[in-house]
Amino acid sequence: MTPHDMLEVAYAEARKGLAAGGIPIGAALFSADGVLLGSGHNRRVQHDDPSVHAETDAFRNAGRQRDYRKTIMVTTLSPCWYCSGLVRQFNIGAVLIGESQTFIGGHDWLAEHGVDVTVLDDERCVTMMTEFIAANPELWNEDIGVAE
Amino acid sequence: MTPHDMLEVAYAEARKGLAAGGIPIGAALFSADGVLLGSGHNRRVQHDDPSVHAETDAFRNAGRQRDYRKTIMVTTLSPCWYCSGLVRQFNIGAVLIGESQTFIGGHDWLAEHGVDVTVLDDERCVTMMTEFIAANPELWNEDIGVAE
Repeated sequence: MTPHDMLEVAYAEARKGLAAGGIPIGAALFSADGVLLGSGHNRRVQHDDPSVHAETDAFRNAGRQRDYRKTIMVTTLSPCWYCSGLVRQFNIGAVLIGESQTFIGGHDWLAEHGVDVTVLDDERCVTMMTEFIAANPELWNEDIGVAE
Repeated sequence: MTPHDMLEVAYAEARKGLAAGGIPIGAALFSADGVLLGSGHNRRVQHDDPSVHAETDAFRNAGRQRDYRKTIMVTTLSPCWYCSGLVRQFNIGAVLIGESQTFIGGHDWLAEHGVDVTVLDDERCVTMMTEFIAANPELWNEDIGVAE
């Protein structure tokens, strides 16, 4: 599994969310040897649930794990503080990010705390979020806690 | 609603979780004028779901809100990094904590970022967690991402 192969899984999740009328952010958790442990996407719209970001969904779908230190969290977008906090608390070893042009969360903070952070600058991810934010600014602001 | 009244709601949630065989951490989200928006407790054991901490559950049960700046998150225990990230990302204005003797998460970090943080040093909360951790060290370590 290359980083781009892993991102493909997260990107497919984001597209699935978009097709269902949701916020197009996808994520996946992999083991060190590239086994997919769980994948998921943002569920705010679909489940009316503000607590399920893409990374949370992937983390949940990976089930209860005893050790995350060698796992890799792949996400189409720079993880917000909520999702960065998840990575830090559970000592997820690496974060692979599709893009951080449309939003920057806590990935620099994670790198400072020893997480192996890579930003792929994937153009499809940038285009997907740019178009989504332009068409749905209120929904986007709701998802990242920006009031008004 | 006094801070102690609010903590009572979170404490009752923690007890409910304990009675169901779960990890005894409870939380509640209140509006500025003391209206309960949602409450909940850790669901790792009950739902086999590692993504639902007490604060996440309360946040989810409060539904989709447009502005969290005047809300108060009450929790029986110092919020871990995952839950501290939630508070920061959604700009929850205040965090009221039962105790921070048995575990310290990101509450100092939240205070540095402008969140109004209060630790009540509630003895019942301390006793509840002390007894739980002593009896279930592996489960506790799993919940806070400590491997081995």
